[in-house]
Amino acid sequence: MKKRIAILGSTGSIGRNALAVVDANADRLQVVGLAGGENAGLLGAQMARHRPRVAAMASGAALDRLKQQGSTAGAELGVGRDGLVAVASHPDVDLVLCASSGTDGLEAVLAAIAHGKTIALANKEVLVMAGGIVTEAARQNGVAILPVDSEHNAIHQCLHGRDLSQLKRVVLTASGGPFRGRSASDLSRVTAEDALKHPTWRMGRKITIDSATLMNKGLEVIEAHWLFGVRPDQIEVLVHPQSVVHSMVELIDGSIIAQLGVADMRLPIQYAFSYPERWAAPVPSLDLARAGRLDFDLPDTDAFPCLRLAYRALELADSLPVVLNAANEVAVALFLDGRIGFTSISQVIERTMDAHRPAEVPTLAAVRAVDRWARACSHEIARGVELKV
Amino acid sequence: MKKRIAILGSTGSIGRNALAVVDANADRLQVVGLAGGENAGLLGAQMARHRPRVAAMASGAALDRLKQQGSTAGAELGVGRDGLVAVASHPDVDLVLCASSGTDGLEAVLAAIAHGKTIALANKEVLVMAGGIVTEAARQNGVAILPVDSEHNAIHQCLHGRDLSQLKRVVLTASGGPFRGRSASDLSRVTAEDALKHPTWRMGRKITIDSATLMNKGLEVIEAHWLFGVRPDQIEVLVHPQSVVHSMVELIDGSIIAQLGVADMRLPIQYAFSYPERWAAPVPSLDLARAGRLDFDLPDTDAFPCLRLAYRALELADSLPVVLNAANEVAVALFLDGRIGFTSISQVIERTMDAHRPAEVPTLAAVRAVDRWARACSHEIARGVELKV
Repeated sequence: MKKRIAILGSTGSIGRNALAVVDANADRLQVVGLAGGENAGLLGAQMARHRPRVAAMASGAALDRLKQQGSTAGAELGVGRDGLVAVASHPDVDLVLCASSGTDGLEAVLAAIAHGKTIALANKEVLVMAGGIVTEAARQNGVAILPVDSEHNAIHQCLHGRDLSQLKRVVLTASGGPFRGRSASDLSRVTAEDALKHPTWRMGRKITIDSATLMNKGLEVIEAHWLFGVRPDQIEVLVHPQSVVHSMVELIDGSIIAQLGVADMRLPIQYAFSYPERWAAPVPSLDLARAGRLDFDLPDTDAFPCLRLAYRALELADSLPVVLNAANEVAVALFLDGRIGFTSISQVIERTMDAHRPAEVPTLAAVRAVDRWARACSHEIARGVELKV
Repeated sequence: MKKRIAILGSTGSIGRNALAVVDANADRLQVVGLAGGENAGLLGAQMARHRPRVAAMASGAALDRLKQQGSTAGAELGVGRDGLVAVASHPDVDLVLCASSGTDGLEAVLAAIAHGKTIALANKEVLVMAGGIVTEAARQNGVAILPVDSEHNAIHQCLHGRDLSQLKRVVLTASGGPFRGRSASDLSRVTAEDALKHPTWRMGRKITIDSATLMNKGLEVIEAHWLFGVRPDQIEVLVHPQSVVHSMVELIDGSIIAQLGVADMRLPIQYAFSYPERWAAPVPSLDLARAGRLDFDLPDTDAFPCLRLAYRALELADSLPVVLNAANEVAVALFLDGRIGFTSISQVIERTMDAHRPAEVPTLAAVRAVDRWARACSHEIARGVELKV
């Protein structure tokens, strides 16, 4: 019997790779739900190929364009967050891949968990904003959260069912991004174009900027806390420019287990789709003799203060990671628009965090309220640091 | 309840490290059996400290010296292979660490398996000579063989109970020894003193020479075949001079799981003693940022033909690994005595293998017969290549 998959964010980078994994394993996987953003042309093509039972787009306008494609026959259709929820909780779905960007997937993931679906999680914001709510819901419903982010996926593979009491710490590797080795003063003049040149992974624009600031690694630190129950002092980040070692765990006897592989998102996606089985992969094996050399170094948190800010948010916990994430989204968007400089990203985030009074966020409504406050506040702060273009 | 340990080869390098592990975990481990070689002084001191119920020495003369120490009271005493068997099969023993050198431990390991003891195996010759007999006996008696060699121990940790059907291949790492990068012609003039300077591990003399010729890795290739059911073409050797990655497995989806750690034999010994638990280790953790760099390269089998000979022995299987091992022991001893040169070691082995007609070796008697033949033959061959000193 085939595993029946819903993909939230099927028109994005992860979503397209996920459909390639489905194509390569058509005898074992079936797509029953697809949710895209604004790209109706692509979602229409995906629907024509995979014939899902339920589909959704981010906006009504996008849905109208989709309907004009003529490939929606027989599918239940939805829009926006409600559309994501309908796709994620459809009764025919076994596993939901959450690869929608930003915070839109939050309600859909909780709905999927409530309906007992396995979660393959490629969206960082879900755990950064609502890690306590989501992991508690997964525990109560006996639902597995399988990380798709290459680092957490690596840790999941390294742990391989080991009891978490055997875990001393996790080591997240970071490529260091395109600006590795540059000083803080050097970084004030870099452009969005420079920042979008990631050395080892091809990804969307937002996450590529997050990689350049190391905020991506900061968000992963918070994610690791929720996925593996590790305290901030049990999470180490090592810069590893070759991106061959995807992450590691240290066990209580000092033994380190690492996962290595080629940098191709189809591998962690297939791992999550096939788990607990493993299937042959359609990509060549890693050739370590050819790679030749692997380097490891401590990150420079003076040049890349976003990583330090993420640890600070996690240590104080409660609402501060929500503020960190919201302010980062605002600041990155302004940077991509050429409105603020690269080094202003961390300044906007830090000042927004300084302006926030941490509080508990036990409900999604509380999370959304803090999120709204932080976005407004960081916009306000950003105005003070905007470039005179 | 404490795990009750017997140590075959307690006066050697592995044995002394094993007793350090016992000392560090005195609340969980108890020594009930000790077998040493000729060093009666050290075995006497070990008996005074650990009060085993059974002990043995390699020779009657050594046992007489041991009795004069006055620390044998209350212990059952034995000599030679029979003594090893008595220690390994004593009814109070739960786990036998086989760290005796050479082929002497073979009968003792089989006796321990027949009595249902867990085997912690640090002796390569046991599997190289009688891998089929030993692993079949372990299977029939439901006995676990826990590898203590750092490479196979690493593979055991990487597999961590995964089904062997998920295993694509194993990658054994090799430091490359003291002569890494040297050409074949360079190596004809090296001395035993040069060869005894191993870059990363402190070990006995025989295994240090085996590391310099890469025969140690060759024996490990054969060992890996028996421990993990992998064919020769599923076993890769990579030179990794830092000895930080102790070995790896590649799973069928291309994912590589590696085990890393400091180069200290107490770690794999403690792993075997604690398995399936893990205990905190008395050594500092690996500092990867400080290590900084890890290199990987293919081995040079022109300069180090012993590795190629081991693959050849494994591919033809049956009696040829016995011949390889016996000829190697003879050639290494002659090299350490200054009787043959370094590059003659592989020549003696290859010519002995050429002179052998492979046959099945279904019994220990058959193994011993081939072993005797190979030793005599390689001595004969060595006379033709002896140095004119």
